[in-house]
Amino acid sequence: MQPATNNNGEILNEFELIARLSELDSAKNLECDNTVLIGIGDDAAVVSTPASQMLLTTDAIVDGVHFRSVDERWFDVGWKCAVSNLSDIAAMGGVPDHALVTLGVPPGASVETYADFYNGMNAAFSQFGGSIVGGDVVSSSTMFVNLALTGHPSSDSFGEPITMRRTEARAGDLVCVTGPLGSSAGGLKALLNGDTNPSSTILIDRHYRPTPRIEIGNKLVSSGVRCAMDISDGLVGDLEKIAKLSSVKITVEMTSIPLTTELIFMFGSSAIELALGGGEDYELAFTASKPLVDDLVANNIGITVIGSVTSSELPGGQVDVIDENGELYEPIRKGWDHLNV
Amino acid sequence: MQPATNNNGEILNEFELIARLSELDSAKNLECDNTVLIGIGDDAAVVSTPASQMLLTTDAIVDGVHFRSVDERWFDVGWKCAVSNLSDIAAMGGVPDHALVTLGVPPGASVETYADFYNGMNAAFSQFGGSIVGGDVVSSSTMFVNLALTGHPSSDSFGEPITMRRTEARAGDLVCVTGPLGSSAGGLKALLNGDTNPSSTILIDRHYRPTPRIEIGNKLVSSGVRCAMDISDGLVGDLEKIAKLSSVKITVEMTSIPLTTELIFMFGSSAIELALGGGEDYELAFTASKPLVDDLVANNIGITVIGSVTSSELPGGQVDVIDENGELYEPIRKGWDHLNV
Repeated sequence: MQPATNNNGEILNEFELIARLSELDSAKNLECDNTVLIGIGDDAAVVSTPASQMLLTTDAIVDGVHFRSVDERWFDVGWKCAVSNLSDIAAMGGVPDHALVTLGVPPGASVETYADFYNGMNAAFSQFGGSIVGGDVVSSSTMFVNLALTGHPSSDSFGEPITMRRTEARAGDLVCVTGPLGSSAGGLKALLNGDTNPSSTILIDRHYRPTPRIEIGNKLVSSGVRCAMDISDGLVGDLEKIAKLSSVKITVEMTSIPLTTELIFMFGSSAIELALGGGEDYELAFTASKPLVDDLVANNIGITVIGSVTSSELPGGQVDVIDENGELYEPIRKGWDHLNV
Repeated sequence: MQPATNNNGEILNEFELIARLSELDSAKNLECDNTVLIGIGDDAAVVSTPASQMLLTTDAIVDGVHFRSVDERWFDVGWKCAVSNLSDIAAMGGVPDHALVTLGVPPGASVETYADFYNGMNAAFSQFGGSIVGGDVVSSSTMFVNLALTGHPSSDSFGEPITMRRTEARAGDLVCVTGPLGSSAGGLKALLNGDTNPSSTILIDRHYRPTPRIEIGNKLVSSGVRCAMDISDGLVGDLEKIAKLSSVKITVEMTSIPLTTELIFMFGSSAIELALGGGEDYELAFTASKPLVDDLVANNIGITVIGSVTSSELPGGQVDVIDENGELYEPIRKGWDHLNV
């Protein structure tokens, strides 16, 4: 297999690539992280555990499926790869700690590519928490990156760990989201269409630089919210996971779903379809009792009620979308299945 | 992209594949693991942390590089994928805890393939410790698997965590290994040659079913050993990593390296080359003072002295191999670089 090179065409080995990436300025925040006892370079990293419970998540991205190497937006790809994992920790109401990165390196890939990619990942970790403490580098004809991330749960006032789960939706709960939906999917469409107007640019930025809702996730769990997930595969498909695991029916009022003006400007009446079925917004969806939601709204933490849990004890669960006339609406696409794209 | 199917040609989605794999009998040991508070199915797994420090490692395998899908030895591939990670925990003297598995699934891959693969992984975890608590499933034209594994360090008699590192080799230390080398590389050669005699079969088994040295790793660290690594990329190349990180010169006596009779029978005088440069034996290499090594040998824990640390304060480190006449010997291959295979 043709080896990786730097931009002078110099052939790199696995250990040189790891060494170069460890030395990036953006990786320096690791040095300030006193939970990292042994970082990159030994058989395993050694970290001190900040809590009695730990969160574990992993997400991979593959060239041609989750990103396109031909676009050469490496910083953005790195950012988003970190965000997809950070968002899982946010959905549990947790705090990110330590990351392991596996690089599947294709023939001829350059060190600069990976440096940009690492800078993007490190920028997200630096802003939202977490640091890279180890990884693996392997040859692969298809470029891929796997990130595994640990975190720890928030604590209640007694110091006990608290999390938000998909199993805890209860009849009578309101269903809420933490921000507008569909913008990432709209950005992807604008990108593929080659649109360059100001609205497109905003949507494309939303596609490339999503925000993991760590901060609001922590506020929600501390306020008493116990059911949440992140919207990574599409609103309806993701709510179906909560509905199934909680055995409830969720009814979404289509007109309550928050949309950005840019999305409406660009896509008109089909904006709602992007909001219902488009993935990668990385907002949180959660359910909570009306008094609790009223408190959250009164405290202006930035949430929108989009529906309610309308019945319980429903094995398999169900999600209904209701239009402005109170009629059942059937979305064209409910979400993304990663094996059938 | 063509979707994954079961053996009836039924199209599977990501969530069905995960559900089927979670339901395997071999995954049932997870239910007995009371450190797993939330397993597969939520945004992140939640586990209780058994110690104040944690070990983190990750290793990926790629079709055509680390295994060949055409061989259809899925149980073995799963076993070895688990072992490569378990071996990293062994090299730190630690105890394996929780694993995250990412599957890069190519078009047309079957559920049975992944069931066999998971059974192999679960068999290794069941025997040596650790359980799968989560993961990710993505489409990929090239099949790959990434495993991330947590563990915790052993403790000394005061309950303080103790580990073995690559930085702790000291002048005067003896250099030891925990078992015979080169058998895995010999097995691979026998496999590629189509050899089927009894010696080949033993070597091929060694290639497909290596043992992670968790138990002896725990004994070593508890006995006071503080410098070790696992031999995954080849003896000389791996000792060079210890030499570099400890800034020492290591001198290996070629005739002291343990070889199996099967390897000698099959490969004669070139057996030693397989031992010096062949990867994936997953034995441990360690250094310790002579009195400590004498104790270990007296206790019959199954180690062999193969050399010593002959000088210190040598930036960059150095490994010399000495033949039966005391002459410097230059191995044909020192080890594996995963970007230049």
